[in-house]
Amino acid sequence: MRLGAAWYPEHWPEEHWTEDVRLMREAGMNVSRIAEFAWSTMEPAEGQFNLDWLERAVSLLADNGIATVLGTPTAAPPAWLTQAHPTTLAVDEYGRRAQHGNRCHYCVNSPIYLDFCRQIVEAMAIRFGQNPHIIGWQLDNEYNRVCYCEECRREFQQFLKKRFDTIENLNQHWSTAYWSEAYNDWRQIPIPIGYHNPGLMLEWRRFITESYRRYQHQQIAILRRYIKPEVWITHNFMGWFDLFDHYEMAADLDLAAWDNYIGTGQLDYTANGAVHDLTRGLKRQNFWLMETQPGHVNWSSINNDLNHGAVRAMAWHAIGHGAEAVLYWQWRSALGGQEQYHGTLIGPDGKPRLLYQEIHQIGPDLSQAGDALSGTSPKAEVAMLHSYPDRWSVMWQKHHRDFDYIQHFIHYYRPLAERNIPVDVISDHASLDDYKLVIAPCLLILDDKLVESLTQFVKGGGHLILTLRTGMKDEYNALLPSRQPGPLSRLAGCRVEEYYALEKEVPLFSIWRDVERGNCSIWAERLEVGDEGHALASYAKSNGWLDNKAAVTMRDERAGRAYYVGTWLDETMQRSFMEFASDEAGVKPVMDSSKGVEVCRRVAEDGRTVYILINHSREPAQLDLPFSATNLFTQKALETPLDLEPNGVAVIAPAASDN
Amino acid sequence: MRLGAAWYPEHWPEEHWTEDVRLMREAGMNVSRIAEFAWSTMEPAEGQFNLDWLERAVSLLADNGIATVLGTPTAAPPAWLTQAHPTTLAVDEYGRRAQHGNRCHYCVNSPIYLDFCRQIVEAMAIRFGQNPHIIGWQLDNEYNRVCYCEECRREFQQFLKKRFDTIENLNQHWSTAYWSEAYNDWRQIPIPIGYHNPGLMLEWRRFITESYRRYQHQQIAILRRYIKPEVWITHNFMGWFDLFDHYEMAADLDLAAWDNYIGTGQLDYTANGAVHDLTRGLKRQNFWLMETQPGHVNWSSINNDLNHGAVRAMAWHAIGHGAEAVLYWQWRSALGGQEQYHGTLIGPDGKPRLLYQEIHQIGPDLSQAGDALSGTSPKAEVAMLHSYPDRWSVMWQKHHRDFDYIQHFIHYYRPLAERNIPVDVISDHASLDDYKLVIAPCLLILDDKLVESLTQFVKGGGHLILTLRTGMKDEYNALLPSRQPGPLSRLAGCRVEEYYALEKEVPLFSIWRDVERGNCSIWAERLEVGDEGHALASYAKSNGWLDNKAAVTMRDERAGRAYYVGTWLDETMQRSFMEFASDEAGVKPVMDSSKGVEVCRRVAEDGRTVYILINHSREPAQLDLPFSATNLFTQKALETPLDLEPNGVAVIAPAASDN
Amino acid sequence: MRLGAAWYPEHWPEEHWTEDVRLMREAGMNVSRIAEFAWSTMEPAEGQFNLDWLERAVSLLADNGIATVLGTPTAAPPAWLTQAHPTTLAVDEYGRRAQHGNRCHYCVNSPIYLDFCRQIVEAMAIRFGQNPHIIGWQLDNEYNRVCYCEECRREFQQFLKKRFDTIENLNQHWSTAYWSEAYNDWRQIPIPIGYHNPGLMLEWRRFITESYRRYQHQQIAILRRYIKPEVWITHNFMGWFDLFDHYEMAADLDLAAWDNYIGTGQLDYTANGAVHDLTRGLKRQNFWLMETQPGHVNWSSINNDLNHGAVRAMAWHAIGHGAEAVLYWQWRSALGGQEQYHGTLIGPDGKPRLLYQEIHQIGPDLSQAGDALSGTSPKAEVAMLHSYPDRWSVMWQKHHRDFDYIQHFIHYYRPLAERNIPVDVISDHASLDDYKLVIAPCLLILDDKLVESLTQFVKGGGHLILTLRTGMKDEYNALLPSRQPGPLSRLAGCRVEEYYALEKEVPLFSIWRDVERGNCSIWAERLEVGDEGHALASYAKSNGWLDNKAAVTMRDERAGRAYYVGTWLDETMQRSFMEFASDEAGVKPVMDSSKGVEVCRRVAEDGRTVYILINHSREPAQLDLPFSATNLFTQKALETPLDLEPNGVAVIAPAASDN
Repeated sequence: MRLGAAWYPEHWPEEHWTEDVRLMREAGMNVSRIAEFAWSTMEPAEGQFNLDWLERAVSLLADNGIATVLGTPTAAPPAWLTQAHPTTLAVDEYGRRAQHGNRCHYCVNSPIYLDFCRQIVEAMAIRFGQNPHIIGWQLDNEYNRVCYCEECRREFQQFLKKRFDTIENLNQHWSTAYWSEAYNDWRQIPIPIGYHNPGLMLEWRRFITESYRRYQHQQIAILRRYIKPEVWITHNFMGWFDLFDHYEMAADLDLAAWDNYIGTGQLDYTANGAVHDLTRGLKRQNFWLMETQPGHVNWSSINNDLNHGAVRAMAWHAIGHGAEAVLYWQWRSALGGQEQYHGTLIGPDGKPRLLYQEIHQIGPDLSQAGDALSGTSPKAEVAMLHSYPDRWSVMWQKHHRDFDYIQHFIHYYRPLAERNIPVDVISDHASLDDYKLVIAPCLLILDDKLVESLTQFVKGGGHLILTLRTGMKDEYNALLPSRQPGPLSRLAGCRVEEYYALEKEVPLFSIWRDVERGNCSIWAERLEVGDEGHALASYAKSNGWLDNKAAVTMRDERAGRAYYVGTWLDETMQRSFMEFASDEAGVKPVMDSSKGVEVCRRVAEDGRTVYILINHSREPAQLDLPFSATNLFTQKALETPLDLEPNGVAVIAPAASDN
Repeated sequence: MRLGAAWYPEHWPEEHWTEDVRLMREAGMNVSRIAEFAWSTMEPAEGQFNLDWLERAVSLLADNGIATVLGTPTAAPPAWLTQAHPTTLAVDEYGRRAQHGNRCHYCVNSPIYLDFCRQIVEAMAIRFGQNPHIIGWQLDNEYNRVCYCEECRREFQQFLKKRFDTIENLNQHWSTAYWSEAYNDWRQIPIPIGYHNPGLMLEWRRFITESYRRYQHQQIAILRRYIKPEVWITHNFMGWFDLFDHYEMAADLDLAAWDNYIGTGQLDYTANGAVHDLTRGLKRQNFWLMETQPGHVNWSSINNDLNHGAVRAMAWHAIGHGAEAVLYWQWRSALGGQEQYHGTLIGPDGKPRLLYQEIHQIGPDLSQAGDALSGTSPKAEVAMLHSYPDRWSVMWQKHHRDFDYIQHFIHYYRPLAERNIPVDVISDHASLDDYKLVIAPCLLILDDKLVESLTQFVKGGGHLILTLRTGMKDEYNALLPSRQPGPLSRLAGCRVEEYYALEKEVPLFSIWRDVERGNCSIWAERLEVGDEGHALASYAKSNGWLDNKAAVTMRDERAGRAYYVGTWLDETMQRSFMEFASDEAGVKPVMDSSKGVEVCRRVAEDGRTVYILINHSREPAQLDLPFSATNLFTQKALETPLDLEPNGVAVIAPAASDN
Repeated sequence: MRLGAAWYPEHWPEEHWTEDVRLMREAGMNVSRIAEFAWSTMEPAEGQFNLDWLERAVSLLADNGIATVLGTPTAAPPAWLTQAHPTTLAVDEYGRRAQHGNRCHYCVNSPIYLDFCRQIVEAMAIRFGQNPHIIGWQLDNEYNRVCYCEECRREFQQFLKKRFDTIENLNQHWSTAYWSEAYNDWRQIPIPIGYHNPGLMLEWRRFITESYRRYQHQQIAILRRYIKPEVWITHNFMGWFDLFDHYEMAADLDLAAWDNYIGTGQLDYTANGAVHDLTRGLKRQNFWLMETQPGHVNWSSINNDLNHGAVRAMAWHAIGHGAEAVLYWQWRSALGGQEQYHGTLIGPDGKPRLLYQEIHQIGPDLSQAGDALSGTSPKAEVAMLHSYPDRWSVMWQKHHRDFDYIQHFIHYYRPLAERNIPVDVISDHASLDDYKLVIAPCLLILDDKLVESLTQFVKGGGHLILTLRTGMKDEYNALLPSRQPGPLSRLAGCRVEEYYALEKEVPLFSIWRDVERGNCSIWAERLEVGDEGHALASYAKSNGWLDNKAAVTMRDERAGRAYYVGTWLDETMQRSFMEFASDEAGVKPVMDSSKGVEVCRRVAEDGRTVYILINHSREPAQLDLPFSATNLFTQKALETPLDLEPNGVAVIAPAASDN
């Protein structure tokens, strides 16, 4: 397990470094990420590489027992580069080139830029490829820019040509007879600005993905020629950020990593855990938390501090969800620059800030619990399917201003998280083996492979929850020529007669257990129940169309089952439904706990199990452990009941006899 | 009477057509609008016209008893056209050319574009001009774009030259000594972006009107050379949309038509009726409802469905206000394109959606009542005057953020609608003959002709309601060198000493009947009552300036009367005032009804009368008919009282003895 | 004392002038500002000057006893100028040249524009320099535009070169190692658009200041060659407007002036007084109120009228704070142009509007009280320090969306204003001699001179209030390498351990008098109390970090004292604290009064004192005068208690025996 921070030695005179690194070591840190914005320091003029300082920094860290993750600095090209080659700067919707002094302001498709990236990455790879203190590389930083330049447009047109082969094929998939859009020539196709043909918009996102993937791949290919095989390559993604398809991007990386910031307010662990799980699902293995918030940020509308103890609790929350490392951004503020006011561990005076003491506590704990955690990872009986094309499509055509894919996703995740039921968040095209319950929120776009995968899952005895908007579209973002859920209709035991947004709440009643009454909102589908289906919930009297019609259905197939939820239930009904559905599927919580207390579990291949218990509430909590256990921080036996103060953390293993 | 839908055969393989048309016929449809976005299908490459498919579609419709309205497709130029001639694309305020794949993205003044329009329209006219199944033509689709290109600017300068003759004259009318704006040269005059000289802004709107009128006129001239005299030409306007002066645009058309969409929420018939009446007033004759909402739309913030029965009720509401035809947009969704989620009658699977059954009910009813309705139209004793220059001027200089011309207009319309008093909404320059009561809300801009018309109306015994902001401006949007209501001051019996916005409600009391107390808001004028005038309402104590000063006045002239309402009364006082004023004018409701029940009346020249009764409320209603009547849907005698379910409709005629 | 209005004779035929000027005289006016937008009238074509009309206007005014303030017309270049030289037009962030027909749309750095300005100003100076009726000149009008053209960018780069000498120096002060921003070449430096490096942003504002100062200086230099020494030169600033550093701009002027508009709502005198005091502080002498609101404006969201009597009260409020003149904008509306609906004294019909009578009352009063007021000015024992760099820095990095420098400033000003304690608002670098209490709200940026000035002030026995965010930055907007308040830490008796925004209210308790409980919000600093410091208020239990930690501290040094307020107290606690702090400093209110009644005092060098008493409340008020006094309007003795109606004003002097 790794603990560390992002460090920018290039911001400071070299004489400051020793004290900085001493304080890192003293806090129990054993990793540091460096160099990812240091291009102008590494190559102050074209072709003049200056990497000695960087090597000295790596050595100083190593001398203090701190490993290095090296960043390639391509997120911020030097001024001499963009001045000499303005086409390397991205162009915005208004035709303006980006300004120097920002980040990720390059055109990802600029051949000139790619060439300069190649040179700096190769220079770093040659110098540091065999350095024993480098354990991994981070490529660039938080890819996030869209460019509207003519070069990008031409590349996009080439991309479309490769994808559709003929313009007639493109015209057909995009229904371009509509509004006389039909193309005769690839060069007629625009980069969409604002709302446009949904087919065009989807391919534009695929092209952005392809552009970044090519950009990223160039760096990987260079590094792999020079670095040792055990050294990994990653990129720091941004949680729910969705400019490109992260599954595509992660395929080429060795390790997934992300940057977790709360911004305004305090941690909502029942939502935040989903993002950890999302990142873990990118490669279906443990991940790195490459950046996280030391107290407060500087870019949110209200940059409040996290409560005392919450930063430590968040570290363990991340580990509980599969983090192998926790790094803070950043170690120490630069005196200037756009993030002056961001939280750090060390003040501009070079001395620890208050939070340093809280971090200081994590290091020893981690080192105590490290062996037990080693080789473990979260294991789940429940999977939630996630898809970027589905998200994009829903985002562009929300139909109700409050329809948000992520809120809808969390609406299903939260009742599980509240009960300490672990969840894997995975690509909708991932394998579903070994899951008891699969939830596919808003599975808008279907293809044959996906239909087959879900059908086999149910036939194999799995329980599947389908929800509203499922099966409306094909992979080109065109409507399927059938009613929802299209090819899943038989499996689901229902067919959507009509759908629309709700301008106000509508009453409904459910019968999954006793009759319960509640409300739904935002979206309603009127379901026609199929021959083998059953209505589990129905709308009460409202607009005449929905009155007494099915809202939720269920259909059993062999040992398996499929639910279809055609509306957005209120919180209480949702909790009730999810409890019913997970119980029916035979899914078991890791442990019972009182409200606000999270219990995570990591399991090794050999069965070794570690429990991470965190009191996220503002009140003291008490847990009755169902087994006798060892406190891994102290290596002593735990007494039950276990007391946890607010933000208190316990990491425990069943005593030998129980494990 | 016509019932139909917009149909896009070009979106579908020809083998689907037969079933589509069969379902139309089965729903009782007898008209279809087609082709208005089919340019790229009709002319897939420059000069290569392909109209055979369209003729087959027209024939297929005809074979099923369905007439065709043909749309000219100029709202959406093909990609080959704009690619070869980029200047045909409109330029926005940021100097960007519009993108392909949208609609109405042409520059309305582009000579090249006009030339291409000429060619396609002529090709269609030659092919279909004598086709017996075409009953009318729709030009383009929902004109709505403003272009800021240099070509438009030059045309605008030429337009100004024609209008003002000399630059000195323009300088004088626009008061250009102000802010040193004076022009020496027509070429100095800009297209206004954002708020600018009100004189310039008004002429810019007049120029947009002129541009579209010229654009439209080209198509009319071509068509008229080829089509039969009884075939009409129209355009589908957009209700309150105000980019150009619709009276000018409608003058060249044979028929007015509009597209009526609710968007979010449910029908407010007391406001929606005003838009029907507005459209009817464009040519002072019955109109077509060219597009309306089949359930829900896809472009609003919440795309909810209309309640069960409301779509049918809306059709009869339109007919009650003078619609001769009701067409739904659209028949069946294209699988792709920006409007995938819009409501339709037929699903993407080619099968009826739920709403189809509701529409299905309209056809037979219409066919039963058709003979009785034939030749009838609404007749009103009340006219409300409407003016685009007034609206524009108020919109640009609201003075209070909540001052909205349309809301103010409806504030006067609604109390009449609630009482089933029919209203003609007409141009402020239209003839006022035969009206008992004329309301001129916000008659900002006066000219001699208008003053004379109103004066003669009152002298002839009419009752006239003038309201706040009347008579402030001349036709160049310059202040009149007098106090409001300027040349109407004597007629109105008052003079505005001061006006301004109200930051909060102000109390006032009225004496039109008993003393009533209420409030006003948004706008206040302090009225000096003239020699022959009387105060009907006065402000109570508030800011010191208004205390006890007149807010509403009245003056009788011979048998006629003029009111002046200097503020925005609250709903209750407004209802009371409008009841007083309409009673005094001798205006009679069509019929009494309970709240939410609308009664419309259509009358033929020979006196034949049809009543359309609609229960827009959510509760069952009962009406005592004042005469014995025939139910035109069943042709049977009606029993009184008549029961109407929510969204229930009855169309009745007085039994022969009462008619 | 002067009373007058802005008059635009060029808007009207010359035959209207006589009546206009007669009405001015009748209202007791003795000054008029003219010509400041009349360039196109004065120079209708390049080099053709026409100033005869202007001279006739000046003479007509003079014949009626009305002096003239002449405006240079450079805020609105003629169309022939910008047409021939488009580079004289400012460029916006989107690269668009400004349009003609607006104001302040020039590029302030355009050499061509500067040359044309030189010509028109010189022509005016030659003609009017010795005219005995001109008492002052106003340069341009409300400088306010930023230009993003390449010329400005080059000038900015030159400015930076002069300021930093070497690019290495700039790189160091801006910490450009951060995000690889380092510059090799001055030409790489952009004009910042949106949020950018805080160092760059600060210099950009300094450059704007420098640009306007050079622009302004050209006009001053020309005028001074031709005008009489006693004739002053001013510019009409806009209160809190902060595009440039007003202290820099005012340094070159003889007189400060500003334009005071309420917009929506009514006067808040406890906030408005601060802006008068700010303007008085620009040159630390009395100022002109060059424009103020005659009833209502036309550009706010709700353009309501000021209550009856409030306009008069505002005039005296201004005088009470040091105005030497009150001018209304404007005398009479132009019939056209963007401000048609703005309040005026004369209607478009040339006749007085209602407000004219209220103004009419001011003239005689002013003339009665004039002798007593002559040579007097407000004198304060309290100074509040104000700084543009601090404001800019806070505005760009608010950290909490509701953090507003001005609101924070007024939070300290209001409790003093409510108690009739006069305040000087002065530059943070001004001399602090003679003050008992100095408040330095948000003194973010420190330099040695400022630290020395504050230290000496306290050592000399002064009381100093420092507040949150003090001492974070150096003059380059870089963080100081120390904890807040940095070099003021010893003086303040505390050190900021941590700071951040508060997402909700936090409880705290104070002990400055009895224990009081209250809340704070928006911002919290946790203070470590120094050896000689004392905690005056502490946070109660909240987020764990702040619990029981100091929020407000105090430290005595010899006879002096420094407070440090580390949070934003609620209104009640703030009032209590400010009462405590001002009492402790020995500061005395001018007079006690009931809520809403303002008492201002103006004192002459010889001790002559005038009191201005204004009832800003909506209720009658009564004052017990602590001395026997003369009513300066009537020159009669006043009886005590003195009754003041709402918006009532009394201007009094102590009777000879009391003075």
